[in-house]
Amino acid sequence: MREVAIAGVGMTKFGVSEITQVEMFAEAAMDAIAASNIKPEAIQAVYVGNADGNVEEGQAVMAPMCASEIGLKGLPATSFQAACSSGTLAIINAFVWVSLGLYDVVLAGGTERQRTMSTPLATRVMGFGVHAKYETPTGLSFPGIFAMMAHLYARKYNLPLSELKEAMARVSFKAHKWGSINPKAQFFGKEVTMEKIYASDMVASPLQVYDCCPISDGGAAVVVASMDVARKLTDKPVQIIGVGQGSSGAVCSQKDITRIPARELSSQRAYKMAGLKPSDIDVCELHDCFTIAEIVASEGLGFFKPGDGYKAVMRGDTDMGGKIPINMSGGIKAKGHPVGATGAAQVYEIVNQLRGECGARQVEGVKVGMTDTMGGSFASIAHIIMRRGW
Amino acid sequence: MREVAIAGVGMTKFGVSEITQVEMFAEAAMDAIAASNIKPEAIQAVYVGNADGNVEEGQAVMAPMCASEIGLKGLPATSFQAACSSGTLAIINAFVWVSLGLYDVVLAGGTERQRTMSTPLATRVMGFGVHAKYETPTGLSFPGIFAMMAHLYARKYNLPLSELKEAMARVSFKAHKWGSINPKAQFFGKEVTMEKIYASDMVASPLQVYDCCPISDGGAAVVVASMDVARKLTDKPVQIIGVGQGSSGAVCSQKDITRIPARELSSQRAYKMAGLKPSDIDVCELHDCFTIAEIVASEGLGFFKPGDGYKAVMRGDTDMGGKIPINMSGGIKAKGHPVGATGAAQVYEIVNQLRGECGARQVEGVKVGMTDTMGGSFASIAHIIMRRGW
Repeated sequence: MREVAIAGVGMTKFGVSEITQVEMFAEAAMDAIAASNIKPEAIQAVYVGNADGNVEEGQAVMAPMCASEIGLKGLPATSFQAACSSGTLAIINAFVWVSLGLYDVVLAGGTERQRTMSTPLATRVMGFGVHAKYETPTGLSFPGIFAMMAHLYARKYNLPLSELKEAMARVSFKAHKWGSINPKAQFFGKEVTMEKIYASDMVASPLQVYDCCPISDGGAAVVVASMDVARKLTDKPVQIIGVGQGSSGAVCSQKDITRIPARELSSQRAYKMAGLKPSDIDVCELHDCFTIAEIVASEGLGFFKPGDGYKAVMRGDTDMGGKIPINMSGGIKAKGHPVGATGAAQVYEIVNQLRGECGARQVEGVKVGMTDTMGGSFASIAHIIMRRGW
Repeated sequence: MREVAIAGVGMTKFGVSEITQVEMFAEAAMDAIAASNIKPEAIQAVYVGNADGNVEEGQAVMAPMCASEIGLKGLPATSFQAACSSGTLAIINAFVWVSLGLYDVVLAGGTERQRTMSTPLATRVMGFGVHAKYETPTGLSFPGIFAMMAHLYARKYNLPLSELKEAMARVSFKAHKWGSINPKAQFFGKEVTMEKIYASDMVASPLQVYDCCPISDGGAAVVVASMDVARKLTDKPVQIIGVGQGSSGAVCSQKDITRIPARELSSQRAYKMAGLKPSDIDVCELHDCFTIAEIVASEGLGFFKPGDGYKAVMRGDTDMGGKIPINMSGGIKAKGHPVGATGAAQVYEIVNQLRGECGARQVEGVKVGMTDTMGGSFASIAHIIMRRGW
């Protein structure tokens, strides 16, 4: 396998879009192409993550339509459907095909437009990510699943729910603090207070509105190239050094959703490929679709021991200057969550962190960064570890 | 790249299913696993093609749910969304990952359940494969697109529509003749006459009911392994020697839909990888979603010159004993078209043809076979060439 790098990245502002998801991908892709100093005709394949474009806009076969939109007709164009982890799988597959010499340059990313739907409908559409036969009939949707996770976490570690809720509120506060100064974030310019978080409406006890990510539109794209090619294009190629992927079935087939074996398997695969351990990671974008999800993920990735994640939040370990700054983009919570694009937007942030281009959100001395993306009821989990390639 | 083979194949009977698409994939997969003499724990990844499971059954993240259903929890499980070519992309990606040594054994295939929908709804859902912004508003659905193709073909080659319609009717007759003796086919046991074909209802002029494939449920799966592994499992490993993939955008961006550049590009890529030319192919399963589609595909694959495809049908070149027997399974027309499974079912047939296991449908002396699958409004086209590996 040869070395592979990201030459350039692009993303739309997340939030509400007046353009289609094909057009959003194209906008992000043209930015990534321009940032990569590459001629579009050098691109050999297009990989696009998208979850439910058919329901949202009546648009399936997303990758071919995206390729055509930016003038790349005829190219192999593959769409990956893995709910919220779709974009990450597109990038991982681009990495593999380039790494193994089948292509030199692949455009990869994701797109999703969910604000065309009402909140109840969007909740149901995202609910397609649970097991249709065993779970949908129970009425389970994602707020309910993650509410159960919070209750189980509190019980398992024998802590009062109020204590966990304070840690969850702090996760939300941190997300909005950094998201408010990220111009690409859905909640850019909107810092929130702890009071506002605590006063927000209940969604699924104990999750309140500020424990839940928003419904979003957006696209993100990256140019994946062999290191040889990337070095000719940019002074700051970001090398992909480890990837991992794991899966789970129905939630009801999982023993303990405060530990997610698919995440532990997948991240261990990524660490092994990279030859690194959790303590080597300098900055991480992880899947905080709900505040409790960030706490559980921070443990699953090995940054903290099981049951220590909520304490880590209270200690400030996951904030700027802490042991492992998490979601300095604002995360899914405050940056927004156009599900097919989310994994690619996480990579966008890590690339910019490694390049030192995040301004007031910049973590000092970042040499290695990681993304964690989860789709469905923990059904599809994937990881990417990157480092400076210069 | 190392040699890769298919060790075993499985598929459900196509038609109407009382079980879910996850369960249909599992049924096909268990047959493929048994036929491969492999222990399930040797499987390292699961790749599943599925087009619209979210709309059809409320089920997204198909691959993880399928992996879990057959007890393969935790494995990397990737879903490919490419409308009717989804299953082919799953197998092509399995081939690449195994070929390059990342995995030794991958379970790949596809599944779809569309009979849960009424015909008008299914037509709309399949219509998600056209360009949502430029085409959907015109009312275009697939019967309309392929009706245009027929009119354009007749005009381009200056032949009376009645002459083309006779060739199209013969395509349908051939499909049903062979499909009627394929126990896996939706129309098994139901041979039709030319009179019945001509008398069938008009769908979109000049396409009548017997020019159109049915709406179907079904699943199909194959075990893709390194040749070293496959040789230990079976005496008759079927080697994958060439793959190709191409894409198009909206129909309105295509100059002439009687020639499809994405097909020509993709099949040329596959021929080049295999080191073969069209005349080397002994049997072919190609994308006959409508009878005119078979004629156009037989030209695009290089079996006949442009404009000679309809004459080839009249000469019997595409039937048993002809120059290139096409769709001896009954094809999409008579075998059925559960879109995510179609590409894998084509591979199922070619593997059995190469092994000489097709009984009365067996083409004599088959050494090389090929599949052609098309998704959306020619948006995603993919090819696989296989030969005997023994």
